[in-house]
Amino acid sequence: MASGGVGEEVLRNKQVMLRDYVSNGFPKELDMYVTTNTVKLKVPEGSNGVLVKNLFLSCDPYMRGRMKPPTQAIYMDSFTPGSPISGLGVAKVLDSGHPNFKRGDLIWGLTGWEEYSLITVTESLFKIHNTDVPLSYYTGILGMPGMTAYVGFYEVCSPKKGEYVFISAASGAVGQLVGQFAKLLGCYVVGSAGSKEKVDLLKNKFGFDEAFNYKEEPDLSAALKRYLPEGIDIYFENVGGKMLDAVLVNMRINCRIAVCGMISQYSLERPEGVHNLMNLILKQARMEGFMVPNYYHKYPEFLNLVLPYIKEGKIVYVEDIAEGLESSPAALVGLFTGRNVGKQVVMVARE
Amino acid sequence: MASGGVGEEVLRNKQVMLRDYVSNGFPKELDMYVTTNTVKLKVPEGSNGVLVKNLFLSCDPYMRGRMKPPTQAIYMDSFTPGSPISGLGVAKVLDSGHPNFKRGDLIWGLTGWEEYSLITVTESLFKIHNTDVPLSYYTGILGMPGMTAYVGFYEVCSPKKGEYVFISAASGAVGQLVGQFAKLLGCYVVGSAGSKEKVDLLKNKFGFDEAFNYKEEPDLSAALKRYLPEGIDIYFENVGGKMLDAVLVNMRINCRIAVCGMISQYSLERPEGVHNLMNLILKQARMEGFMVPNYYHKYPEFLNLVLPYIKEGKIVYVEDIAEGLESSPAALVGLFTGRNVGKQVVMVARE
Ligand SMILES: NC(=O)c1ccc[n+]([C@@H]2O[C@H](COP(=O)([O-])OP(=O)(O)OC[C@H]3O[C@@H](n4cnc5c(N)ncnc54)[C@H](OP(=O)(O)O)[C@@H]3O)[C@@H](O)[C@H]2O)c1
Ligand SMILES: NC(=O)c1ccc[n+]([C@@H]2O[C@H](COP(=O)([O-])OP(=O)(O)OC[C@H]3O[C@@H](n4cnc5c(N)ncnc54)[C@H](OP(=O)(O)O)[C@@H]3O)[C@@H](O)[C@H]2O)c1
Repeated sequence: MASGGVGEEVLRNKQVMLRDYVSNGFPKELDMYVTTNTVKLKVPEGSNGVLVKNLFLSCDPYMRGRMKPPTQAIYMDSFTPGSPISGLGVAKVLDSGHPNFKRGDLIWGLTGWEEYSLITVTESLFKIHNTDVPLSYYTGILGMPGMTAYVGFYEVCSPKKGEYVFISAASGAVGQLVGQFAKLLGCYVVGSAGSKEKVDLLKNKFGFDEAFNYKEEPDLSAALKRYLPEGIDIYFENVGGKMLDAVLVNMRINCRIAVCGMISQYSLERPEGVHNLMNLILKQARMEGFMVPNYYHKYPEFLNLVLPYIKEGKIVYVEDIAEGLESSPAALVGLFTGRNVGKQVVMVARE
Repeated sequence: MASGGVGEEVLRNKQVMLRDYVSNGFPKELDMYVTTNTVKLKVPEGSNGVLVKNLFLSCDPYMRGRMKPPTQAIYMDSFTPGSPISGLGVAKVLDSGHPNFKRGDLIWGLTGWEEYSLITVTESLFKIHNTDVPLSYYTGILGMPGMTAYVGFYEVCSPKKGEYVFISAASGAVGQLVGQFAKLLGCYVVGSAGSKEKVDLLKNKFGFDEAFNYKEEPDLSAALKRYLPEGIDIYFENVGGKMLDAVLVNMRINCRIAVCGMISQYSLERPEGVHNLMNLILKQARMEGFMVPNYYHKYPEFLNLVLPYIKEGKIVYVEDIAEGLESSPAALVGLFTGRNVGKQVVMVARE
């Protein structure tokens, strides 16, 4: 499909568009559609953007908030119906108007859900220097979710050896890593997840001390009492709602709750009520929310910690890789029913 | 009514008894009754307790929890039906089996709701050294509620000059002091309370920048937006429930919520649901519970700060003093309908 001279190539560009805003309810595959446009493989004259070929796209729970109408958006601006959605991804630079990036560079950061993207906001792009690990890892353990686990656990939880740690959505992109950090520190670690397969992963692959399937527990508080009879020192909160209420009645004195996410609430018209907050007083507990972008200055320090762990096999990482851009709507909405096993990635192209 | 030799005096001892446990609903005057027993004004042979004459009794919201049946008790053990209830108070030592206390000493701490008490647990009694302030202050500004304001504000809120502070139940024993501490530090301070009279006190006596009657605000979030259009940096939480939900949507980035109490919830069978906790993430906010008894080692440091403020008139304190033990049931239950204006005290006897 080349046309014009070198670097003026025009190619077909498959794109994933939002059909319409999704206020409430689970998002569905049909809320997005795949279409084909064209792209010029060159940064426009005078722009300091970069033109990239997308390799891996990251499916992240916060994207649910971007599907809502602008008045209800959470975290970030809403997507625009009829335009390609955007998200984090790993990409290769094909052309660059920016002095820090050159053709051939690998980057991760905010890109479009399409084959090729012109990225004009380059401030939040990270250059990838270590390529002796799977490139897809930069959507997960070596990207935003990895940093989330790192700052959420080490900065917000104030963890100490020997403490009792509980993690919800524990087999996911963030949770599996929090659990492994906690084990490396010498904590007792319990996780919850939504299937037998995930529970097995937690216990047999990620080294959690115990794990349970929350969908099979009619009484979450009783389940927590069973697996953590001494109570909980640290709760890494990924889901919100009833699980949070159950944790609140199972806290130990000085419990810390790192409020990372509340995925069970993202699609509800009105969030569920949480009833047991009085326990924060009784247990002198701290509950603290955080947003990973505020900690990106720690990314180099994070890589220094995690890359050796990966190479030495002290930390493992499970990904769920969907093949091809066409599979991305299903992959994204699958987060909200727990279809993903480990970090949900979409492979758009091989390098 | 004296009988026997010196120090063996037997006197009538009026006592306030709990009639029966009060599971749910507002406590009522009739849940207690006043009866008369006798007391020997001497510490039993071999005991290291102290025998005191009670001067002032403190009505405190946590006492609601002690009226519940043992299975539902909050904070402390339940009272025993048919026995005198206990609480904090100011008393004079009449006889002592304890080396640290002698006849004539003034103390504050846990005592009985009666004219004379034999206190056998003396570890938590404080000796009163400064008597150039009203003695009743040791139930309030110079006692447990004062310490609560002090540690809650300075230790839990991490306050900074210029920050926007909101306090609920602001005219009460704790709230009026938190507000004045915040003003002394140079914060902008807004309080809510349940009557016009209390709102006037807040603005005209305690120097709050703004105050509002929450009972006249159908939309608490709108009220907060009106009085704190820039949002809230610090919330001193005394009431819980709907007010907390309204604060959660009006937080500034890095907001801190000191969870001191949730009085609106103490009489409910099931606490209300709080819906807006997701904002903890969006605003990277911290919510932290605390219990004042854990900070009593700071009491001397606290007195050094507050006594001069009182003497220089930089801090004022409003008390609501009910006269006579007979008035104590009504005074106590009045806390839960907001009958008290300022710190609720019962005067049992003049020194
Ligand atoms: N604060 C931040 O800066 C930040 C950054 C990144 C992520 N987060 C948050 O961290 C959490 C985890 O993200 P992630 O990327 O690691 O996602 P993930 O765990 O890989 O995927 C989402 C998982 O959530 C679980 N889930 C979905 N609906 C649920 C429900 N109703 N109740 C309980 N669990 C449910 C599912 O697992 P099951 O099969 O176990 O149900 C699903 O696989 C999310 O809440 C996300 O928003 C926050
Ligand atoms: N964590 C600790 O260590 C500790 C120590 C001491 C006290 N506390 C807590 O601090 C809070 C204040 O105690 P305090 O001694 O200063 O009591 P207080 O404010 O002097 O008296 C209680 C006041 O609460 C208000 N109130 C009652 N029911 C309410 C409702 N449903 N909604 C809103 N406000 C209501 C009333 O004032 P209005 O007229 O304004 O409604 C009432 O006057 C309480 O929650 C208490 O449990 C905690």
